[in-house]
Amino acid sequence: MSSATRFLHINEPLRMKKGGFLQSFTLAYETWGKLNAHRTNAVLILSGLSPSAHAASSEADPSPGWWEQMIGPGAPIDTDRFYVIALNSLGSCKGSTGPASENPETGKPYRLDFPDLCVEDVAASAKLLIKHMDIGQLCTMVGPSMGGMSGLAYLQQNPESARHFLTISSSPNSAPFSIAVRSLQRELIVSDPAWNDGNYDDRNWPVKGMRMARKLGMLSYRSSEEWRTRFGRRKQDYFPTELFGMNFEVESYLEAAARRFVHSFDPCSYLYLSRAMDWFDVADDYPDLQTALAGIKLKTACVIGVETDILFPAYQQKEIAEALRMNGIDTSFSNLESLMGHDAFLVDYDHFNPHVTAYFDRVWYEDKL
Amino acid sequence: MSSATRFLHINEPLRMKKGGFLQSFTLAYETWGKLNAHRTNAVLILSGLSPSAHAASSEADPSPGWWEQMIGPGAPIDTDRFYVIALNSLGSCKGSTGPASENPETGKPYRLDFPDLCVEDVAASAKLLIKHMDIGQLCTMVGPSMGGMSGLAYLQQNPESARHFLTISSSPNSAPFSIAVRSLQRELIVSDPAWNDGNYDDRNWPVKGMRMARKLGMLSYRSSEEWRTRFGRRKQDYFPTELFGMNFEVESYLEAAARRFVHSFDPCSYLYLSRAMDWFDVADDYPDLQTALAGIKLKTACVIGVETDILFPAYQQKEIAEALRMNGIDTSFSNLESLMGHDAFLVDYDHFNPHVTAYFDRVWYEDKL
Repeated sequence: MSSATRFLHINEPLRMKKGGFLQSFTLAYETWGKLNAHRTNAVLILSGLSPSAHAASSEADPSPGWWEQMIGPGAPIDTDRFYVIALNSLGSCKGSTGPASENPETGKPYRLDFPDLCVEDVAASAKLLIKHMDIGQLCTMVGPSMGGMSGLAYLQQNPESARHFLTISSSPNSAPFSIAVRSLQRELIVSDPAWNDGNYDDRNWPVKGMRMARKLGMLSYRSSEEWRTRFGRRKQDYFPTELFGMNFEVESYLEAAARRFVHSFDPCSYLYLSRAMDWFDVADDYPDLQTALAGIKLKTACVIGVETDILFPAYQQKEIAEALRMNGIDTSFSNLESLMGHDAFLVDYDHFNPHVTAYFDRVWYEDKL
Repeated sequence: MSSATRFLHINEPLRMKKGGFLQSFTLAYETWGKLNAHRTNAVLILSGLSPSAHAASSEADPSPGWWEQMIGPGAPIDTDRFYVIALNSLGSCKGSTGPASENPETGKPYRLDFPDLCVEDVAASAKLLIKHMDIGQLCTMVGPSMGGMSGLAYLQQNPESARHFLTISSSPNSAPFSIAVRSLQRELIVSDPAWNDGNYDDRNWPVKGMRMARKLGMLSYRSSEEWRTRFGRRKQDYFPTELFGMNFEVESYLEAAARRFVHSFDPCSYLYLSRAMDWFDVADDYPDLQTALAGIKLKTACVIGVETDILFPAYQQKEIAEALRMNGIDTSFSNLESLMGHDAFLVDYDHFNPHVTAYFDRVWYEDKL
């Protein structure tokens, strides 16, 4: 956890969508900027699967955050104007309660005793944070990737809870290709003998399963075209050429990225959040997406996707934008030509920043009217 | 092996590209139609990674082959006109010598003692079959997927060995994304404890590794759009809902397909052929692709790819077509709009048959002139 991370401990039970509950739980979050006197300038960022609440640096923690170039004074999400809140998702392992947290009933980590987790539970817990902060209505909900799913669920549960909505490379549900990718990632982890039905520890960690799951993730986060221009067929000499692998630079790039990830995330948290995404369909209890989003009151929305994203493909961005428009919400939609695939919002600021800057300028202007 | 499969035993050493050699070896093949009096109507089909020589049914073996609808009397590759030969690749496990074959020096399977295999070795062995059949020049070389790589290598090694060339969903080299997919597939297999450095047997088979590698393969063989229309988010109830998986029909589809594959292919053969594809670059010893193919004498060529193929993407089809054209070869190029991805040539006959029929009509006409 970053030294800027704050914690909200909630000692009331959280009833969860699939029937389980948490007797009490903690939410980890960080903030930037100042809440104005009318408490109307809050921007809530709900994150993708793996990020912490440390989205950007601050005086309390000058280390770069996962969205460093997007948040700050004069940045696209301008902390001179907005009070920005980033939340670590319920179920994660970066300060908020999740399967790696101590189960108060046993004094040991929950692991598989953690109740079934849905995106809707992430959303419900986020609302409790906002309520605790005494913020009646958010200025803007921001959701990249899984965060966009959480944002949709939040708005569906609380139709008047935000005036503006920015969703990036997200979807109203998981496409079957995305389910297939994540299902195989989970299978890779639970097939590692060290997984041991969740009874791993620091010395017996499902390293292979996590490493291979991350590589598969990278295959779905980036684009073939990016790697063609970035690596081509250059050979690698950094990692030893092991049996049947590690001849090419693209392989060593994946190996290095996977090794960095293995111990940075709890395997059980990964499984719970991954499955929650597969389960998510904001229209599950509705005849169609338009009806599912019908109650939501927003002044504006902005949907941004990336043409080369194979995990949250362009057609799903269009589905969100069209459903919002059909409900009378003034919605812009941009399909960026970045080569960076699903990860573009984390790495391709050249393509993203102008769009996010323009939207938040508009938000600022609309709210001043 | 099919009962129609024939075997050529070659008792001369095969020197291989990476320096190893086979003291003797066997090639498995099948034929359809009749070789004409001038021996000029032979069509050689070099296959993708996993197919056997049983490409189509015949009197000797009426069971359907892997390209059943493509080959036969009146079919796109018309056996009333052409003498069609399908070869099981060297290194495979369907009758031709590969890592699962008995090493004559030890009386046990080669496994990791099999010499390093390259696509160029597959091509060189194929030429020995054609020489043995006393065919001076092929009418047409046909290469889908890896078979197109083998075909390019064959033509490069033997520039006047064919008058026509049909390459389908292939490439002049492996793209970094394709390398990444195959590299991870190999890692999945060798990470299975049952792999045991190649010392598996029927009772201790790397089932998990092979199953997961096949699932990853399926992710790269099909398209997200196909699965969207075919499965959507329908739930499955065929396989028991195991921990963290198997909720959706797309998952049970992959599980069933993977289970069928696990024991149908030798893990070691899979690794050797997979790595051979990654290594392949027909322009390795040349300044560029055009120069690499400069010597090849063909009357016509036809390059067919599929827009949704992420493993052998459309740009690679264009590269082959353009390099052939720059060398003065009359080359047609079609990028089909099939949703079936790389597998389209095996399953989407509606899109493929008209193009293959048209090309072989042209071949027949050109050769009559």
